[in-house]
Amino acid sequence: MRNKASKEEEKEVEKSNIRFYQAFESLSLEKMEEVWDHADNTVCVHPGWDMSIGWMAIRDSWNRIFQNTEMIKFIVTNTKIKIFENIAIVVCLENIETIVNENNIRMGVIATNIFERQNIKNNNNNNNVKWLIIHHQGSVASNYIPPNISD
Amino acid sequence: MRNKASKEEEKEVEKSNIRFYQAFESLSLEKMEEVWDHADNTVCVHPGWDMSIGWMAIRDSWNRIFQNTEMIKFIVTNTKIKIFENIAIVVCLENIETIVNENNIRMGVIATNIFERQNIKNNNNNNNVKWLIIHHQGSVASNYIPPNISD
Repeated sequence: MRNKASKEEEKEVEKSNIRFYQAFESLSLEKMEEVWDHADNTVCVHPGWDMSIGWMAIRDSWNRIFQNTEMIKFIVTNTKIKIFENIAIVVCLENIETIVNENNIRMGVIATNIFERQNIKNNNNNNNVKWLIIHHQGSVASNYIPPNISD
Repeated sequence: MRNKASKEEEKEVEKSNIRFYQAFESLSLEKMEEVWDHADNTVCVHPGWDMSIGWMAIRDSWNRIFQNTEMIKFIVTNTKIKIFENIAIVVCLENIETIVNENNIRMGVIATNIFERQNIKNNNNNNNVKWLIIHHQGSVASNYIPPNISD
């Protein structure tokens, strides 16, 4: 049975998805570490890159991206969420404005982000439910037209 | 808990993944229909395309691809499978040889294929378990080197 997840659960997943893009905008490895599952079989496919398998390779890929990015801003649109028990599949359009090597670039990337609901112990030894990324794939949208959104 | 799926289950998913590429090679809409979930929220992102949402849009996208393809062959490598209850996430490298507009092209596409295990009634009214595609995203791998495989 699909999509019997509650509205609250869907909101939690949407927040986790936004948190991922905030971590990306912050260009902070520490923030990126917080939203990913640090497992050996976690998968990440950046647009035009080979696939990175396992958290160490993925962490390294973010490090390289952050070192080569001066600024990046996301407006996330067209978000669709499906929840199956502990797995949430998100697809969305990343409307990107970025500066790479002093060039201002606007582009659209279609992303699949898969989250797993995990119980994480917090400092007080209480269980904390968190949706962590176990899979990300982004691919450049051709014929991209930026959305008409004023700041 | 992840990956407590049995080896048999993993084989079933791998077979379903291969069946998808056989349907693609056959350039037959009927065969493609058999491997997809025909739901309104099924997602398909072909390399460089916008996202197609819902089976009718996805069916139409395959129709257009098949009409514009004279021949396509896949060698699927680097397959990684993760199973969570009724959801299987597959990532693989599609090593493609194709003829489009009389041009012979070799390319690599990294694909995320997500399957859902569904109970389908067969002609004898018995339940048949089938893994159907609910999500596909492909993105072109840059710096692609074809694998060294002799026919």
